[in-house]
Amino acid sequence: MIEKWIEKSGIKSSSCNSGFKKDNIPDLALILFPKLVKWTACFTSNRCLAAPLIYAKQLLEKKSLLKAVLINSGNANAATGEKGLQDVLAVSKTVSNLADIKQENVLMSSTGVIGEPLPAAEIESHLPSLIKNCTEFDESIADAITTTDTKRKTEEMTFDSNGEKFHIWGMAKGSGMIEPHLATTLVFIVTDFDSSEDDMASILRNSVDRSFNKISVDGDMSTNDSVFLFSTGKKGGNNDDFVCALDKLTKSLSLKVVSDGEGATKFVNITVIGANTDHDAELAARKIANSQLVRTAIFGEDPNWGRVYAAAGASGAVFDPLKVDIMFNDEIACKNGIKYKNYDENKLANVMKCSRFKITINLGAGNSSYNIYTADLSYRYIEINASYRS
Amino acid sequence: MIEKWIEKSGIKSSSCNSGFKKDNIPDLALILFPKLVKWTACFTSNRCLAAPLIYAKQLLEKKSLLKAVLINSGNANAATGEKGLQDVLAVSKTVSNLADIKQENVLMSSTGVIGEPLPAAEIESHLPSLIKNCTEFDESIADAITTTDTKRKTEEMTFDSNGEKFHIWGMAKGSGMIEPHLATTLVFIVTDFDSSEDDMASILRNSVDRSFNKISVDGDMSTNDSVFLFSTGKKGGNNDDFVCALDKLTKSLSLKVVSDGEGATKFVNITVIGANTDHDAELAARKIANSQLVRTAIFGEDPNWGRVYAAAGASGAVFDPLKVDIMFNDEIACKNGIKYKNYDENKLANVMKCSRFKITINLGAGNSSYNIYTADLSYRYIEINASYRS
Repeated sequence: MIEKWIEKSGIKSSSCNSGFKKDNIPDLALILFPKLVKWTACFTSNRCLAAPLIYAKQLLEKKSLLKAVLINSGNANAATGEKGLQDVLAVSKTVSNLADIKQENVLMSSTGVIGEPLPAAEIESHLPSLIKNCTEFDESIADAITTTDTKRKTEEMTFDSNGEKFHIWGMAKGSGMIEPHLATTLVFIVTDFDSSEDDMASILRNSVDRSFNKISVDGDMSTNDSVFLFSTGKKGGNNDDFVCALDKLTKSLSLKVVSDGEGATKFVNITVIGANTDHDAELAARKIANSQLVRTAIFGEDPNWGRVYAAAGASGAVFDPLKVDIMFNDEIACKNGIKYKNYDENKLANVMKCSRFKITINLGAGNSSYNIYTADLSYRYIEINASYRS
Repeated sequence: MIEKWIEKSGIKSSSCNSGFKKDNIPDLALILFPKLVKWTACFTSNRCLAAPLIYAKQLLEKKSLLKAVLINSGNANAATGEKGLQDVLAVSKTVSNLADIKQENVLMSSTGVIGEPLPAAEIESHLPSLIKNCTEFDESIADAITTTDTKRKTEEMTFDSNGEKFHIWGMAKGSGMIEPHLATTLVFIVTDFDSSEDDMASILRNSVDRSFNKISVDGDMSTNDSVFLFSTGKKGGNNDDFVCALDKLTKSLSLKVVSDGEGATKFVNITVIGANTDHDAELAARKIANSQLVRTAIFGEDPNWGRVYAAAGASGAVFDPLKVDIMFNDEIACKNGIKYKNYDENKLANVMKCSRFKITINLGAGNSSYNIYTADLSYRYIEINASYRS
């Protein structure tokens, strides 16, 4: 097995169970950087920001560098008011004291149930051993940050720039409550590529727009969505090379999120082409990707293209219904707004039996396009979410 | 049993099976008025209008009076292009010939699968017996217009105006694909109250805004949504009296639609108060009512108020998260953006065990309010919609 860069980067990690998850499954993770690192982040546009996001935004505004990142799953520390912020301060102060670093160099991130006070004292009681065990890097911390995820989501990329070799490693969590606006779920990305803080911010923002903002599981938006990028910083690279590698990494991680969508049995690329404007293309793609009727038909392997057509019509995008074409992979279902003359139910049904396929709708109204990845809506989604807190 | 007005109004009806539904269940309905009637209608704002709606709009523009209404379930005649319109013309021409009325006095309405050509010849073959059997009014035609509905949805109201007695009777169908914009599902309302065509149109529009536009089952919008109002016309009434009675009727029918939502086990009133603007109140109410996570929690009888809070935050409505209160019936779950100090999980869970309850969210940002009715998201919804066409 090839050793990963992240394992020899000098970055250290540890994780433990702090009582949120059953069966001693890890739910608390720590990352320690060997030196202060620059960072940037994208946050959810939900108005009800979780406490750790409010605090992280403050750190970012003060341009505080980071030495430690503490992440818990099981409690979102959202809808927790002033107490929630105090808990973030108390926990990060304890990390600061125990690890002998400044408080402003400690970032905290949380995911889980909304509306329960963070059990700060319980978390703090686990910090001494968590810090003591933080002696090398182990990718298993990616498990500690998950909630309903069924798979670990990590990725590493290597790229050359100006004759030097650079690296990016990232981990993500996310399975439900996935309708990102400017960010999604929790994502932590580390690189040894260095760039200005302004460039890092715009590079991350654009990369997130091309990846995490193009997936949807259920149309619900979290209070805790965040994508963090940390740079341990070599000099001398070219931003364009970094953008290219980062895009590959964020796309890979985002597809891992949607293909592990709650209860998902199918992973579908919804592509709108021929839209009059970019905005219309996105409107139609999002409406189709979020349609419960489209997503239950996908689960049922039923090539009910009429639901795709109706969702496009409901999206607000401007087009002539008589110019619409709909394809499932390469099989044509609808041509010029009506059932295709060589429509073949069996061939279409065969496409839908695949675990991954593509639905393309051509609005015939222009040259704009947009694609988004979605999952089907299954019994298992209901099962997971009808009893999430119990 | 008290005889209904509709049964002695002189209006006649009949229904039969024309091959769309299994087990000889009626799927074709005819209404014959004793004389030409004035009418108005509200239609879906879906861009992909079904053929019968395109034709109905033409009739309405020409101010054609009506003598006959033919309704089929099982095929929406949507995404059927020019052929779809020709089929409407062919079928209404046959009704016209057989019933000896002008073609422009025949309205057609369809609901069912999108994208299949209407089997016009098959429908026409049943018209002679349908017309022959149209000798009295029978409310069972309300069954012939249903698709996944489990209950018949009819309502009759009586009201006095200027010393005279007036009547309104209506029937509705609808269970899934319910996110109305300006109309919903198929609704047919008959009254002996007379008003000008302009007044009828605005009265119906406003009444639909207060009823069918305030329900949501799944956030999907049909290509065939229509609400029709027919007046057999006495003179001398007062519009205000009619509005009052019509509002009761449309509200009752709309609540029957949502409480019969596909797979619904709960019927929930989502009320937003304290919003900064009417628009904000509606944004928040619709986002909460359509949230899959809120609706699965309702199905699971889990008072997970954090999902209500997160959905409000994602809605785009402007408010301070620290001023939000959330109630399940009279039980407080959240006060000033955090878990209520006397939060009682058992009492909240007891509210959720009811088949009907109310979730109120006070945004603390102003005096605007909006309420909307929704259903839960259950296994049965998936079951119905994963195999709708088979």
